[in-house]
Amino acid sequence: MNNLEYEKHYYPGTRAELIEKLRQSLSASPARFEHCLRVEQTAIQLAKINGCELELASVAGLVHDYAKERSADEFRKVIFQKAMDKNLLNWGNFIWHGEVGAEIIQDELQIDNQQILDAVRHHTVGAVHMTLLDKIIYVADYIEPGRDFPDVDFARNIAWKNLDDAVKFETKRTLQYLMENNRKIYPAAILTYNEWVAEN
Amino acid sequence: MNNLEYEKHYYPGTRAELIEKLRQSLSASPARFEHCLRVEQTAIQLAKINGCELELASVAGLVHDYAKERSADEFRKVIFQKAMDKNLLNWGNFIWHGEVGAEIIQDELQIDNQQILDAVRHHTVGAVHMTLLDKIIYVADYIEPGRDFPDVDFARNIAWKNLDDAVKFETKRTLQYLMENNRKIYPAAILTYNEWVAEN
Repeated sequence: MNNLEYEKHYYPGTRAELIEKLRQSLSASPARFEHCLRVEQTAIQLAKINGCELELASVAGLVHDYAKERSADEFRKVIFQKAMDKNLLNWGNFIWHGEVGAEIIQDELQIDNQQILDAVRHHTVGAVHMTLLDKIIYVADYIEPGRDFPDVDFARNIAWKNLDDAVKFETKRTLQYLMENNRKIYPAAILTYNEWVAEN
Repeated sequence: MNNLEYEKHYYPGTRAELIEKLRQSLSASPARFEHCLRVEQTAIQLAKINGCELELASVAGLVHDYAKERSADEFRKVIFQKAMDKNLLNWGNFIWHGEVGAEIIQDELQIDNQQILDAVRHHTVGAVHMTLLDKIIYVADYIEPGRDFPDVDFARNIAWKNLDDAVKFETKRTLQYLMENNRKIYPAAILTYNEWVAEN
């Protein structure tokens, strides 16, 4: 376990206190809590390789799924309260815990750093424009050591070599998986694909 | 060859005159002209099975690619003249010959029937809401006897049994093909997929 001392006040407390907040928010799913700890560690490793500040990677990695256990009612309430795009109401937890989750994180954890909040917003379907931190959290979430799917080791090998290639691989494979299984696709995911994968 | 007598005045002339106009518009590509004749015949067969008026299927089948040989400059000019969505400018012939082509067809061929024009608009990437004629042209374009791709016979078998299943099959396979080949995907195609293919 990589025990960073928090110094930048992205979160107004210690890493141990943030982890305790996360444990409470994910109390219904210890497995998801453990996943967040693994994403944090993977994000820190990717941050070291790619020259990203480690504290940003730690905070964003820990909180990326902070709101994942909230009810549909709570997400809908936040969408109205924050006057977010009403089209979000047509989607579900998979989209909400990123886009809407960032608002909940800002309010409940007093995290105001926009890089961290954007990394949470973009961790599910990526974005046309992705910061280094966006890419690190998007990829760390995909390859953390607890993940097990065909080609996960291939994805990990790509990620340790080239973060952009990993974004491309993850985006394409995720869409292909959704399509093979006749799952709905969030239109913004295609904008990510057109930017990161498509060649013409 | 199924020689319909035109009676409804969707096109202000005979079928032979419309075919001559089409030949002129596609003079650079006799193969595309022949493709349009085959799409017409396939559309008429699908119309017979599915209870669609044959003259609609004939006119829409003939003209669906009427504007396909126009230059990018001509398409851009029409987009501006008709105050169409400027986002179209980010795309190319594959999208323009349907969406913008319908405007060219209306102006040059004096075809004002909205069912026919919509079928032209929707023949490349489908639409969330598709009329019977939309579906017939979308599918006829995919399975006409000159088409040759893996699974084309499978697609034909589906089409003769159930038009909606053929729309679903075509939509999914086309997107999968584009993705395998890292080709750009027009976002509206995902809306078609979410409506016709996705199950949750």
